Amino acid sequence: MIFASDNWSGAHPAIAASLAKHASGMAAAYGASDLDKAVEKRFNEIFEREVAVFFVGTGTAANSLSFAAVNRPGGVVLCHREAHVIEDECGAPEFFTHGARLAPVDGAHGLIDPANLRRELSRFRPDFIHAGQPMAVSLSQPSEAGTLYPVSRIEAITQIAHERNLAVHMDGARFANALAATNATPAEMSWKLGVDILSFGATKNGCWCAEAVVFFDPAKAVQFPYIRKRGAQLFSKTRFIAAQFLAYLEDDRWLTLAGHANRMADLLREGVHNSAHAREAWETRTNEVFAILERPVAKRLRAEGAVFYDWNAPHGTPALVGEDEQLIRLVTSWSTEEADVARFSRALA
Amino acid sequence: MIFASDNWSGAHPAIAASLAKHASGMAAAYGASDLDKAVEKRFNEIFEREVAVFFVGTGTAANSLSFAAVNRPGGVVLCHREAHVIEDECGAPEFFTHGARLAPVDGAHGLIDPANLRRELSRFRPDFIHAGQPMAVSLSQPSEAGTLYPVSRIEAITQIAHERNLAVHMDGARFANALAATNATPAEMSWKLGVDILSFGATKNGCWCAEAVVFFDPAKAVQFPYIRKRGAQLFSKTRFIAAQFLAYLEDDRWLTLAGHANRMADLLREGVHNSAHAREAWETRTNEVFAILERPVAKRLRAEGAVFYDWNAPHGTPALVGEDEQLIRLVTSWSTEEADVARFSRALA
Amino acid sequence: MIFASDNWSGAHPAIAASLAKHASGMAAAYGASDLDKAVEKRFNEIFEREVAVFFVGTGTAANSLSFAAVNRPGGVVLCHREAHVIEDECGAPEFFTHGARLAPVDGAHGLIDPANLRRELSRFRPDFIHAGQPMAVSLSQPSEAGTLYPVSRIEAITQIAHERNLAVHMDGARFANALAATNATPAEMSWKLGVDILSFGATKNGCWCAEAVVFFDPAKAVQFPYIRKRGAQLFSKTRFIAAQFLAYLEDDRWLTLAGHANRMADLLREGVHNSAHAREAWETRTNEVFAILERPVAKRLRAEGAVFYDWNAPHGTPALVGEDEQLIRLVTSWSTEEADVARFSRALA
Amino acid sequence: MIFASDNWSGAHPAIAASLAKHASGMAAAYGASDLDKAVEKRFNEIFEREVAVFFVGTGTAANSLSFAAVNRPGGVVLCHREAHVIEDECGAPEFFTHGARLAPVDGAHGLIDPANLRRELSRFRPDFIHAGQPMAVSLSQPSEAGTLYPVSRIEAITQIAHERNLAVHMDGARFANALAATNATPAEMSWKLGVDILSFGATKNGCWCAEAVVFFDPAKAVQFPYIRKRGAQLFSKTRFIAAQFLAYLEDDRWLTLAGHANRMADLLREGVHNSAHAREAWETRTNEVFAILERPVAKRLRAEGAVFYDWNAPHGTPALVGEDEQLIRLVTSWSTEEADVARFSRALA
Repeated sequence: MIFASDNWSGAHPAIAASLAKHASGMAAAYGASDLDKAVEKRFNEIFEREVAVFFVGTGTAANSLSFAAVNRPGGVVLCHREAHVIEDECGAPEFFTHGARLAPVDGAHGLIDPANLRRELSRFRPDFIHAGQPMAVSLSQPSEAGTLYPVSRIEAITQIAHERNLAVHMDGARFANALAATNATPAEMSWKLGVDILSFGATKNGCWCAEAVVFFDPAKAVQFPYIRKRGAQLFSKTRFIAAQFLAYLEDDRWLTLAGHANRMADLLREGVHNSAHAREAWETRTNEVFAILERPVAKRLRAEGAVFYDWNAPHGTPALVGEDEQLIRLVTSWSTEEADVARFSRALA
Repeated sequence: MIFASDNWSGAHPAIAASLAKHASGMAAAYGASDLDKAVEKRFNEIFEREVAVFFVGTGTAANSLSFAAVNRPGGVVLCHREAHVIEDECGAPEFFTHGARLAPVDGAHGLIDPANLRRELSRFRPDFIHAGQPMAVSLSQPSEAGTLYPVSRIEAITQIAHERNLAVHMDGARFANALAATNATPAEMSWKLGVDILSFGATKNGCWCAEAVVFFDPAKAVQFPYIRKRGAQLFSKTRFIAAQFLAYLEDDRWLTLAGHANRMADLLREGVHNSAHAREAWETRTNEVFAILERPVAKRLRAEGAVFYDWNAPHGTPALVGEDEQLIRLVTSWSTEEADVARFSRALA
Repeated sequence: MIFASDNWSGAHPAIAASLAKHASGMAAAYGASDLDKAVEKRFNEIFEREVAVFFVGTGTAANSLSFAAVNRPGGVVLCHREAHVIEDECGAPEFFTHGARLAPVDGAHGLIDPANLRRELSRFRPDFIHAGQPMAVSLSQPSEAGTLYPVSRIEAITQIAHERNLAVHMDGARFANALAATNATPAEMSWKLGVDILSFGATKNGCWCAEAVVFFDPAKAVQFPYIRKRGAQLFSKTRFIAAQFLAYLEDDRWLTLAGHANRMADLLREGVHNSAHAREAWETRTNEVFAILERPVAKRLRAEGAVFYDWNAPHGTPALVGEDEQLIRLVTSWSTEEADVARFSRALA
Repeated sequence: MIFASDNWSGAHPAIAASLAKHASGMAAAYGASDLDKAVEKRFNEIFEREVAVFFVGTGTAANSLSFAAVNRPGGVVLCHREAHVIEDECGAPEFFTHGARLAPVDGAHGLIDPANLRRELSRFRPDFIHAGQPMAVSLSQPSEAGTLYPVSRIEAITQIAHERNLAVHMDGARFANALAATNATPAEMSWKLGVDILSFGATKNGCWCAEAVVFFDPAKAVQFPYIRKRGAQLFSKTRFIAAQFLAYLEDDRWLTLAGHANRMADLLREGVHNSAHAREAWETRTNEVFAILERPVAKRLRAEGAVFYDWNAPHGTPALVGEDEQLIRLVTSWSTEEADVARFSRALA
């Protein structure tokens, strides 16, 4: 009954096998091997256009280096107040940009509210250098709260951003889960909505260590090789990432795995709904469930072997969690077993 | 006949197998798994003392974050003029330290000359803040020139450093090759000589992606978890690094693999010595050979399928390479086959 | 009728005279002159204890370098959501700390609410490195909104900070105005309340360019000489700052000047209260007045020669300013003339 | 007999008077005042073209922010091995560029040797990202060794730089002394030779605190307002710098003052030549003299009240200074009195 995080799972057997298969033989280092190049091309197919793709090792690196790629002195990135880049990356985005500020924008359920975004941006008057200069908007799909942006909301955000000449970055640490939940194509969920740079995560969904930064306009990526190398993210044996992506992207495996995780979360949500001692904190459709439990129940579940994290209530929601209650996060993954979910649901009931 | 770099090799079968073996099942992320902890403990055994060890993804990260760990404002790291940290890391060490300076120290054949080190340090008068403040000495064993520091030379360097309260960092990207060439134990080649922090490399010697920063005084590592996370080097599924190290360190595999690479280089050296068209640029004993070839010979070898890099002559050696000659680097690895070396030697003769 | 900012005023005649007086003759550079040392000692007297004081050139430098002095990797500085360090320094605090995050804390009228501070801090669980590590609380006295912290509120804040081992920084860009408005002594308004580092501003109150960073525990300032020099804030002819401070601090001139500015603001406040077309946005007692005007009135005042800035409404106060209204800021200074204030008040009425 | 540094002098009376004159009255802050704008325009006249000019507070800031203006990830600035930016700015250039490397180029007497520059640049092969990317060449005129580049040498250097698309920065901390010594016009000594950015120093030559960054192509300065503000170098009452420059540049005062300093150094050089106990370490023509003295003589001079600094011998000149000798630096300034020089020369003889 481990629902701590999707990064507690290991690597999918097909991905482990791909690694083993490509372990032998010599190949050019630093991304120059045939395998690296072939996998890079796969991204063109998946996104239905020519993209510039760069493998990196962590989601934090993907996000931070993306910001570095659009960095300006005194730069400001607008993102949701509870965004992962603000709350969970130990200042890496600020560090890799030499101090760009992540300006928090409010919005219910982890989603930037376009009206709030517009209001925040209006605080930056042109040529008033003291306030710094907005340089990007970053949104997470799915969000850090497990919710999904409707397509129209993303369009509204990218339009606001582009009106002001800001880059739009999408944190897609769980991009596959968003696609599996909506049946959108990768293109429909990214550049067709106006997204300029995507952090394409695969680690949480069955890889060991495979993340990519995808630029939808390769011309914007000219300096990125230096940014990645200076950021200590250019692996010598990059084919170990390429080999993972190869199996990951093969036969829609990534979408299948994410679909499984989402379905397991559906079952968890059902379990929460059927319990008299728990309720969803807010509705989600991906592989994360946020539930409010009676404290003794949470304690009991843990005693019975369930593993999950307590969660901070969103800013400005003092009434969300009662005094005798606890907000927890439950995450499923490609490897979550239905029996485990059922056991948890029974324990919760 | 690929002698481009030891990072052109893949992963050793035992290491690939270890990865596959640990792929299934849930395990705590971010270094908290049993496997991570067990492997961390292995480092205590290997170094015969309690150490603080941190897995990272690249040698550049290991070096840069090591410097960050001892960083001071206006800090200066003294290292050899041709050190990897100066010449081959795209400014990452400076970046991760917010601008520490790598002050070059000269010395023949890639080795810091202690007299020169002392002279450079004498330029920094106490309390003269304009010059900055020396904070560390970094040396590579084996050096970037493939040569080995005699133990007494390292002792001389660490003594000079400690007199001035500087940390001593050893770049051990090919640490195993140094041990295999000298039969020194890991402890004898590091902290027993006064080394404070070691970049312990395994990627070049049979792993996919496994590097570690080893602090011989764990008390000095208190802030390092934040430094690593902020530096985007805290992997979520760290057990994929642990699993590699597990197999790497098992049954002295790491020393066996490095010994093989060194022996293959011995054969290459023999081939160079036996050729009328080539000579060693300087003597080495590890898995790197620096040779000066007649240009047409270099061209011919490449036409016959040999892969190797041209190399910059060390600073201040204008007469080393004749006009019709070329300085090249040949690197062997755990996977180099004797037949390949023999073929190269024949082609060279 | 210039109420744009107190930094639109020039230098007080006594300060200009002091500069002229000390212009001739040779003196040791970089802070080593007798004048520099004498003025540094004056700070000990003023603060009734031994302090370490460092002259710098701008308030932005004073704040940013203060944060750098207490910097930690992944560091977080808690400050008011509308703090000057967040809104008006173009990312300098983040830049000089290599990316420390300024975490916004809410509170009415520009003042940190201790309960909110405690709540924000509770989001950082010990050893959860992903969130970074709080390192300081910064508060401005007077605040960016022109308001004053009651002494008890500062005590509450410093107590919360020290419980968690955080440094407390006070942005005193208008410190003299706070003292003049409250009759507190410098010691009573700083270290006696638990403040660790003070940005001591003099530029706005009659100097050309004179700011200082004051450490109440000199032992914490050991690395600051390097931090200042690396930050390009060590002036060679520092006596030009010392000469300004000499005249500034002489015979309580600084408090007299600030008192004048505060009184001029009192008259402005009276003018606002007496007008049917304006009201105070919130109450202030220092040299800044925030007023809400009917738009046509603001326009007319400007046509008549009044100079003042429009101001962003604080976050979360959508109803504060009506649609036909405008929020403006009026600032007085040591050189504001009563006749000008009277003229403005008449025009407003 | 103070020859410690030209920054031990104070401010010229005319400059002090200008400051006093502009102290009263209100004026727009942050560079928007009429005085600021008028003085900015003076730079156009002085340089015979439209330039973008930015006032800053220290020479370190001028140099460091200049580099920041042309910064690239993994960037490398080539400069002389003993350049002020390497030896005397406590890592500020590296800090403000987030870790650009200052690659030392050798050359006799403080001057970059174009052949060495070309050789250093040849080590950076196109697209070999590991070595970083050269972004600028910085040269000092006069050099840190007090020597002057012949015009043809500067042309050779800027040509090499521009061939590789590198910006050329000139550190003109003592620019006026170079002009006074050569009778070149400001234009002839800068952009007409291919210089792109100039650190224009005035502090050492009669100002209190007045430095400027001059861009000869204003289009390259678009981001500089943000770079300066983020770097804490945007002064609020900038007119205090403008007022200094106004008097400094009036009636060729700057060249007159520098000419005086140079002449006083000529007399010092004469004194050295006429002494049996001293010799010039190398020839200079500006306001710095580097002399090698018998140690007892140096000691005696200090006992008699002379003030000067010991100096590090240039790298690679082990035989320059004998064991019983001492290398010292003597600097004259606008305020050096001939009687003092004569007294020193007599004491030396």
